[in-house]
Amino acid sequence: MTTRSWVDVPAGSPFPLANLPYGLARRGDQDAHAVMAVGEHAVDLHAAACRGLLPADVPAEVLAQSSLNDLFALGRPVWEGVRRRVAQLLDVHEGELRDDRDAVEQVLVAQADLTLLLPVAVGDYVDFYSSIHHATNLGRILRPDGEPLLANWRHLPVGYHGRAGTLVASGTEVVRPRGLVAGDDGPRWQATDALDFELEVGAIVGVGSELGTRIPAGSVEDHVVGLVLVNDWSARDVQAYEYQPLGPHLGKSFATSLSPWIVTLDALRPHRVPAPPQDPPVASYLRTEQDTAYTIELEVLVQSEQMRREGLEPVCISRNDFSSMYWTIAQQLAHLTVNGASTRPGDLLASGTVSGPVREEAGSLMELTWRGRDPLTLPTGERRGFLADGDRVVLRAWCGQGDERFGFGSVMGTIASAKED
Amino acid sequence: MTTRSWVDVPAGSPFPLANLPYGLARRGDQDAHAVMAVGEHAVDLHAAACRGLLPADVPAEVLAQSSLNDLFALGRPVWEGVRRRVAQLLDVHEGELRDDRDAVEQVLVAQADLTLLLPVAVGDYVDFYSSIHHATNLGRILRPDGEPLLANWRHLPVGYHGRAGTLVASGTEVVRPRGLVAGDDGPRWQATDALDFELEVGAIVGVGSELGTRIPAGSVEDHVVGLVLVNDWSARDVQAYEYQPLGPHLGKSFATSLSPWIVTLDALRPHRVPAPPQDPPVASYLRTEQDTAYTIELEVLVQSEQMRREGLEPVCISRNDFSSMYWTIAQQLAHLTVNGASTRPGDLLASGTVSGPVREEAGSLMELTWRGRDPLTLPTGERRGFLADGDRVVLRAWCGQGDERFGFGSVMGTIASAKED
Repeated sequence: MTTRSWVDVPAGSPFPLANLPYGLARRGDQDAHAVMAVGEHAVDLHAAACRGLLPADVPAEVLAQSSLNDLFALGRPVWEGVRRRVAQLLDVHEGELRDDRDAVEQVLVAQADLTLLLPVAVGDYVDFYSSIHHATNLGRILRPDGEPLLANWRHLPVGYHGRAGTLVASGTEVVRPRGLVAGDDGPRWQATDALDFELEVGAIVGVGSELGTRIPAGSVEDHVVGLVLVNDWSARDVQAYEYQPLGPHLGKSFATSLSPWIVTLDALRPHRVPAPPQDPPVASYLRTEQDTAYTIELEVLVQSEQMRREGLEPVCISRNDFSSMYWTIAQQLAHLTVNGASTRPGDLLASGTVSGPVREEAGSLMELTWRGRDPLTLPTGERRGFLADGDRVVLRAWCGQGDERFGFGSVMGTIASAKED
Repeated sequence: MTTRSWVDVPAGSPFPLANLPYGLARRGDQDAHAVMAVGEHAVDLHAAACRGLLPADVPAEVLAQSSLNDLFALGRPVWEGVRRRVAQLLDVHEGELRDDRDAVEQVLVAQADLTLLLPVAVGDYVDFYSSIHHATNLGRILRPDGEPLLANWRHLPVGYHGRAGTLVASGTEVVRPRGLVAGDDGPRWQATDALDFELEVGAIVGVGSELGTRIPAGSVEDHVVGLVLVNDWSARDVQAYEYQPLGPHLGKSFATSLSPWIVTLDALRPHRVPAPPQDPPVASYLRTEQDTAYTIELEVLVQSEQMRREGLEPVCISRNDFSSMYWTIAQQLAHLTVNGASTRPGDLLASGTVSGPVREEAGSLMELTWRGRDPLTLPTGERRGFLADGDRVVLRAWCGQGDERFGFGSVMGTIASAKED
């Protein structure tokens, strides 16, 4: 039943026709263009528009900017329309593009020839804390004598603003940060000893909302274009020392990595599932009629420098499913705007660490090693409580089975040693 | 000794030649232009540049954009040079502009004919918590049985990211937000009963810094253009319910008001003073040789709707001095970047509530009324624990004495009633 394309899509590619995610890429020294992934190629949407291949309601200039913000601001009919049109152009039964050798040469680019960029200019980045398993684990680790979940947790999606200016593209090196950490005689000033990743899924706002208005939970698909993978790098010792009473700051603000491809909610529609039941019942503004959770398989892979030297592939250290999240993206967006806060195209809502109910499904080393107490052993025999210099972390995601299966691609970052004091 | 201008500067004006703050304004339907205040007029910097009156290193196009970011990104020599040149053009002994009637008509605009806009597009907004008196007051109110200051407070300038997208221009109406607040049987969903202001001073970054680099505390003047007034509106009941463990979010994100005029660090140089002594000594990256505090008189005025009806002027309910801040802007900027976080032109560092050592010098109603317990009485006899609908809050600031005196102007906001549920 799957539609096939005349463009080769290798078995196991994350980018069959059922996906067609949006990205932003540069070919050599050229300007950034909006692109859409298919197999090991990308459709250059600007080139396609200039040849009159895209719907007339998409001005070509929004497809050649330094972000996809202005494209997405045109609204869901446009971002859906472009994707439907590209699916049609790539269909195995459709010759309009395929049979025009000139057009194919301009419009279809090998991904290997592209530099993938941060797809959007993020105005505000809110990081939530929406996995009940993660919040419970953190509560157990940090407050072993208290109730693991604080009183507000089941009543609202707890979140805070992260630093938008340090969102970085996949592949950007992550330099081990320095900071103040707790010591016996007051704080010590040092490179972090507890560098961690966080496996998260981020929602990209396409159409914003005015100051003083709310976005109903049921309208999420009119506002959110799609999802990316987010690695919210964290220095646990810096965070632990600084975070009371106003929340995380320098323990997180040094870098947050985003995957390059925005998988649209349209592509994800077949993978919508009911969210887990919420008890006690939540306030009316947080309720939705339709299914608003997504079943997405997530995985974390690590590869140390020694593994790379020995030719060993990254090894999977955690795997879980996004559908276990207690709070949905629809609820996060409704909550974020319930006080009248405005939103803008390009805003990012990150889920918070995604962890499953058992230890092997945890989305951070903090949980996987229980704050370093139970280190992981890599195939080289190296042990890891937290990340070492040279470690590479790769997050991946997949939806569906068999012929219907597609993926998010990955977000990758490698740890560089701290700079001299 | 003060330089006089051929432009009339009425006695008591915040904008004599010694000030010349930067702003962004629109005349009627025209594009926004960079402007500089003098008396009750403003110099249209774009018009001045187009007539060849400004230094050649300032391209006219950066003076006619929707923010001052690109102007400031050109660096301190440019933003200082423009201000020096305007001071020269306005000097009473200088005829170049004064005697050219055509030029004066184009370049000098009555402020009454301008709409003042948000001067910068803020990328990241970090709100600090740098007044020891405010932090101590809040500790006493919220944790009456514990040490008022947490263990980290004297070791680093605690701060968190606020919502950049809801920074609003002075005069923007502030709609009373709704939110979840603590109740006997779980949270209640209601309009806030504890709407407050916070008196803050904000530093505007002109020149940013690359990811992976730090800004030394001693380099603050190469990066920060100047200061504005900030009213960090707060819904105390919403904030109290939501803020654990990740800090303030919806209790603050509905609106933060900025004053329109950026008073430059150059203008403020004569008002630099030593910062209060810090005990225990701070980490090396937080130390500076030079004076980095500023003596600025701050005041909060309130005017209820009834006061306006009765023709009563806003009444001053608090007055204090910015030089009492424990942590300086130089230290905030050094801290913000010590983990390698990048900064961008237009970034905002707000001081946190400025409170003096005694109750009458507190910078919020939370402190002035001790969480509503000791309400203030207005000239009409109305009592205020927190803000009522129709209340107008005005923050003002002044530097220096006698002929040298200049001001920040003001930031104003009026409370509108909550929207229907």
